[in-house]
Amino acid sequence: MIVVMDGKTSESHQQKITEKLNEMGYQVHTIKGERKIVLGVIGDAKTLSSIPFYTFDGVENVIPIEKPYKLASKEYKSSPTEIKVKDVVIGGEEIVIMAGPCAVENEKQIFQTAQLVKDAGAKILRGGAFKPRSSPYSFQGLEEEGLKLLAQAREETGLLIVTEVMSASHIELVGRYTDIFQVGARNMQNFVLLKELGKAGKPVLLKRGMAATLEELLLSAEYILSQGNSQVILCERGIRTFENHTRNTLDLSAIPAIKTMSHLPVIVDPSHGTGRRELISPMSKAAIAAGADGLIIEVHPIPKESTSDGAQTIDFTHFKNLMTEIELVAKAVGRTLMQKELSTEKEVS
Amino acid sequence: MIVVMDGKTSESHQQKITEKLNEMGYQVHTIKGERKIVLGVIGDAKTLSSIPFYTFDGVENVIPIEKPYKLASKEYKSSPTEIKVKDVVIGGEEIVIMAGPCAVENEKQIFQTAQLVKDAGAKILRGGAFKPRSSPYSFQGLEEEGLKLLAQAREETGLLIVTEVMSASHIELVGRYTDIFQVGARNMQNFVLLKELGKAGKPVLLKRGMAATLEELLLSAEYILSQGNSQVILCERGIRTFENHTRNTLDLSAIPAIKTMSHLPVIVDPSHGTGRRELISPMSKAAIAAGADGLIIEVHPIPKESTSDGAQTIDFTHFKNLMTEIELVAKAVGRTLMQKELSTEKEVS
Amino acid sequence: MIVVMDGKTSESHQQKITEKLNEMGYQVHTIKGERKIVLGVIGDAKTLSSIPFYTFDGVENVIPIEKPYKLASKEYKSSPTEIKVKDVVIGGEEIVIMAGPCAVENEKQIFQTAQLVKDAGAKILRGGAFKPRSSPYSFQGLEEEGLKLLAQAREETGLLIVTEVMSASHIELVGRYTDIFQVGARNMQNFVLLKELGKAGKPVLLKRGMAATLEELLLSAEYILSQGNSQVILCERGIRTFENHTRNTLDLSAIPAIKTMSHLPVIVDPSHGTGRRELISPMSKAAIAAGADGLIIEVHPIPKESTSDGAQTIDFTHFKNLMTEIELVAKAVGRTLMQKELSTEKEVS
Amino acid sequence: MIVVMDGKTSESHQQKITEKLNEMGYQVHTIKGERKIVLGVIGDAKTLSSIPFYTFDGVENVIPIEKPYKLASKEYKSSPTEIKVKDVVIGGEEIVIMAGPCAVENEKQIFQTAQLVKDAGAKILRGGAFKPRSSPYSFQGLEEEGLKLLAQAREETGLLIVTEVMSASHIELVGRYTDIFQVGARNMQNFVLLKELGKAGKPVLLKRGMAATLEELLLSAEYILSQGNSQVILCERGIRTFENHTRNTLDLSAIPAIKTMSHLPVIVDPSHGTGRRELISPMSKAAIAAGADGLIIEVHPIPKESTSDGAQTIDFTHFKNLMTEIELVAKAVGRTLMQKELSTEKEVS
Repeated sequence: MIVVMDGKTSESHQQKITEKLNEMGYQVHTIKGERKIVLGVIGDAKTLSSIPFYTFDGVENVIPIEKPYKLASKEYKSSPTEIKVKDVVIGGEEIVIMAGPCAVENEKQIFQTAQLVKDAGAKILRGGAFKPRSSPYSFQGLEEEGLKLLAQAREETGLLIVTEVMSASHIELVGRYTDIFQVGARNMQNFVLLKELGKAGKPVLLKRGMAATLEELLLSAEYILSQGNSQVILCERGIRTFENHTRNTLDLSAIPAIKTMSHLPVIVDPSHGTGRRELISPMSKAAIAAGADGLIIEVHPIPKESTSDGAQTIDFTHFKNLMTEIELVAKAVGRTLMQKELSTEKEVS
Repeated sequence: MIVVMDGKTSESHQQKITEKLNEMGYQVHTIKGERKIVLGVIGDAKTLSSIPFYTFDGVENVIPIEKPYKLASKEYKSSPTEIKVKDVVIGGEEIVIMAGPCAVENEKQIFQTAQLVKDAGAKILRGGAFKPRSSPYSFQGLEEEGLKLLAQAREETGLLIVTEVMSASHIELVGRYTDIFQVGARNMQNFVLLKELGKAGKPVLLKRGMAATLEELLLSAEYILSQGNSQVILCERGIRTFENHTRNTLDLSAIPAIKTMSHLPVIVDPSHGTGRRELISPMSKAAIAAGADGLIIEVHPIPKESTSDGAQTIDFTHFKNLMTEIELVAKAVGRTLMQKELSTEKEVS
Repeated sequence: MIVVMDGKTSESHQQKITEKLNEMGYQVHTIKGERKIVLGVIGDAKTLSSIPFYTFDGVENVIPIEKPYKLASKEYKSSPTEIKVKDVVIGGEEIVIMAGPCAVENEKQIFQTAQLVKDAGAKILRGGAFKPRSSPYSFQGLEEEGLKLLAQAREETGLLIVTEVMSASHIELVGRYTDIFQVGARNMQNFVLLKELGKAGKPVLLKRGMAATLEELLLSAEYILSQGNSQVILCERGIRTFENHTRNTLDLSAIPAIKTMSHLPVIVDPSHGTGRRELISPMSKAAIAAGADGLIIEVHPIPKESTSDGAQTIDFTHFKNLMTEIELVAKAVGRTLMQKELSTEKEVS
Repeated sequence: MIVVMDGKTSESHQQKITEKLNEMGYQVHTIKGERKIVLGVIGDAKTLSSIPFYTFDGVENVIPIEKPYKLASKEYKSSPTEIKVKDVVIGGEEIVIMAGPCAVENEKQIFQTAQLVKDAGAKILRGGAFKPRSSPYSFQGLEEEGLKLLAQAREETGLLIVTEVMSASHIELVGRYTDIFQVGARNMQNFVLLKELGKAGKPVLLKRGMAATLEELLLSAEYILSQGNSQVILCERGIRTFENHTRNTLDLSAIPAIKTMSHLPVIVDPSHGTGRRELISPMSKAAIAAGADGLIIEVHPIPKESTSDGAQTIDFTHFKNLMTEIELVAKAVGRTLMQKELSTEKEVS
């Protein structure tokens, strides 16, 4: 921690803050410059942050030097974390594709989609049963009925399931069906939910909030990790900016940036990240080229009939072409799309 | 709803979308321009939003004309909503000040603060018992112990209480103590929480999310209103922008803007809105001048010892001066600070 | 300057950077923490910024401690700068109102406006002769013809003139007519223009860029000041954010924030800052309450016939009411609107 | 143009606006909904934008339907524009790399860099002679001396040159040396400069402003195109957001988005777009995967000694590796890096 003080701060005011810090067990190094006095404070960063430095006379600025997250950091664990869910590994050499409709609507829709995304190479089926919608008047999801349909689609295809959990009180219910919990962007700082997911014993796909910095995303991961759940997958899904051509601004630099900060896998959601169907293929390729460990994509058999997010949903033909295209890019950056054989094994047997 | 189509869209493709709309009971007016075809669609706006227009060939843009919120709108209720909590009215002629520490820390701190903010003219005591903190390692609040201290401070002073509820599962507990539920910025789109608060029978202070548009804020209010709770107080507390001199950018234009869109009262949080003690007085005055119905301000007897938000917390002297200053501005815009006598009555008896 | 290095940086790599700094005449204080090494570097901040610290092994972060601007800073000059233009003082006790049309359109429009804004208490006439427009197909201004009309309106009324200069090559021409040069938001970092205005010998009204931090605004002022022109008026006119209800987000906290950083006067443009007529009165009052030294407002005799910015332009009745309202707020914060007598003197004689 | 009016607007007020529009030669279609009246206005969009719709009673919203740019649009020219500068084609199948130091510093630096980036496959040498710097105290460039060094480096290597022009008054001077004019982000809306470049007869590399929408970028291109210069190359270089881990947020979705809006080529600047050396390779690959027609990259022989932008500058080894990596990605998306033979021909002869 660096504390910057006005160069004219009196000796006694300098002493006050130094004494307080010494009392609390910190070492203080004082550097006197021309116009500023700088205190270098050494000791446990976690407790330091709770000292109200700004209330001491002369203090102008307080600059943290150490990262506020620990378990999520590369310093804590330098090798990339691989998250194994049954026979699927997220964060390894192979790139994992999650695909499916925005919302689970009915049996036919989810079964058809599951079969087709699987045939194209997806390993995980996405689909919302509980839907966070800006308006109370929009379709809010089939709830448990939707979860059951997802589980049946898993039975049929062998795909894994990822679906959103919107509240700590739903964890038990959603957990009965899903393989991976999804935390949506609006809940990235729902700390009660995060803490409970830290005890839920299943992987968590944590989406970046619309206005969240990378540091805040990692701190939210830290909430889950610090409760004992080390299976966190981060997801870049676009941030909110002034640009309104796209629904959000997909921040692909988040991928390599997080890779320098953390050991956790990072996937990208080009559907919400752009909100425009025509941008999904190029941004999927770009995400892979930037180092993403996977993608989560909205696919619907007949986008015309989807109950939500129609503008950003692609159909099967589009999805199949996309898979062919990203396979080439994956190879160009030394990665592979997962072997199709692996996941179809179950079906065959 | 306006649907803009490419001027070269074939007749049959135009028909498809028109037929779909007619089937669903909408009237369609077609306007053919030079390069664009425009469909004016008339009917119930609520169901319209679930049609996946973008998936029809030729559709380039879909523009909603009607506001997506209803109960929160000025069209629904043109007179300003006044929220009465015991003898305090929020949204009336008088400006209501809520003040207190960031977090409830101990008996002495909360009692002393309660007495002093009351003496200076505050009507409502704020104080966090459940604290949403970016880091899992920061102080998370005294929880029920904090709620009890708040309730005791209410007994002693006659002040009302406002305190944050972070999860639907805490509503029952927090509701046992508080007069007004506070929903923090990070939970503005925690829809499970909002729906439950719609049934909780107590006023809700709803803070604007860091990246929330005014329309989204009103839609979140609509979640509460549509469950039968008409007592919603909106709170501007700063949005996230590129500017980093202040913790957030306090968007005071939100006040008069909301007043043109909605009948709900609006208050301002200059403490979180600026994050800097020296900006709290000028921005409090500005908020009142812009038409705010109240303020919520962080005050601590000894900011040096506060466990959180020290940089933006003011002490009692500062608070007393602030109250004197805003009283003058309130008068200049035809408002008053609430009569001190009213709230001290109880104490006297 | 603080240089943060990885705690594992080798002694020899630490030496390299220290030697380079010593060579250049800086003192270096090294603080070794648990996971980080911190160098406190003392010496002239101006040249420090040109050392490519990040290219030295082990360097993780470089944190400037001293402000990069000097002449604009409060440390350089602690008393507020008052800018005197004939009998008008900007930055003194009195609040100065600048008003007029977006663009000068014709003789009748500008003369009528000049007379009426003067009668209502404005001291300075605004009006664009050179108009920066996003589209090359929009009206670009009357150019010199517009400047002449402004000068004639000044003759008639005794008002001062402020008008925009868009290029260094126009300074001579615009300077022949105007009393104050206006630099628009889009040109805040047109450094060639700023440098030349530093030599132009007339006050400059410098608008904040749409994405400019306060520090960058002060650095742009520094460009003018460092060329010998000390007459710089800063203008907050809204920044670009995700919120689209308003044209820009008017950042009123910029006013008191700049007052803590700089001695220069600050005015506010609520017309561009909101882009909505109905928000101009409340935001004007709020600006005054927050400590603004003046306002610049778009007024047109018949907004229906204005060639630009119709949505944010107010008519005379609106303007007169606005003046009455802000006078009350000005008094409430210990300021006054300038005496009407002073500026009408000339007319009388 | 769509004009939305309050459904309660009186017949006479509806007539007023309709009459005005008819007078001006527009056709008006009126659609009456439940709560809103919608006017569809047909005619020349260019003049429509100058009608002050908002000043008519009852008008709530005005929504443009046609794009405000024309020559830059895909509707105007559907095939991609290829810009040929000597033997280099920008916007064709081959991806063009521009590389070089932030600023030209001296003969050795620029010659060495030129030779090495050429050997690695770059076709165009970048280097600033006039430098726009936030602070007046930072190095402002070697000016004409820098231009001469660039021209000599071209002589030696056969590379083309791209360098920044900061003011209309410098066009003649810079044009004497450069092959391509660069307009920096801060000057994207310096309309005087853009207009003059429209007459300068050389290609212009137009960088997106830090807070510019894609529509505004295309309108700035339109300024150049409408003066007769059809050789405009657009450049995404990051936008300003709340995220502060990176210097800017590189908006790669701008690439495919612009490709759907315009025929102009798009390149990417990952150096300014990220501000961090370790992100340049992944974001370069991502840019190519997203469809960029080229890259502009800051390279310096000894980044430790560069006078500016050290944190984002890469050395030769890094650059060579980068070129190898992007070549693979280029192939994966059906593009090539330009043939090395072509540009070395001259050297051989």
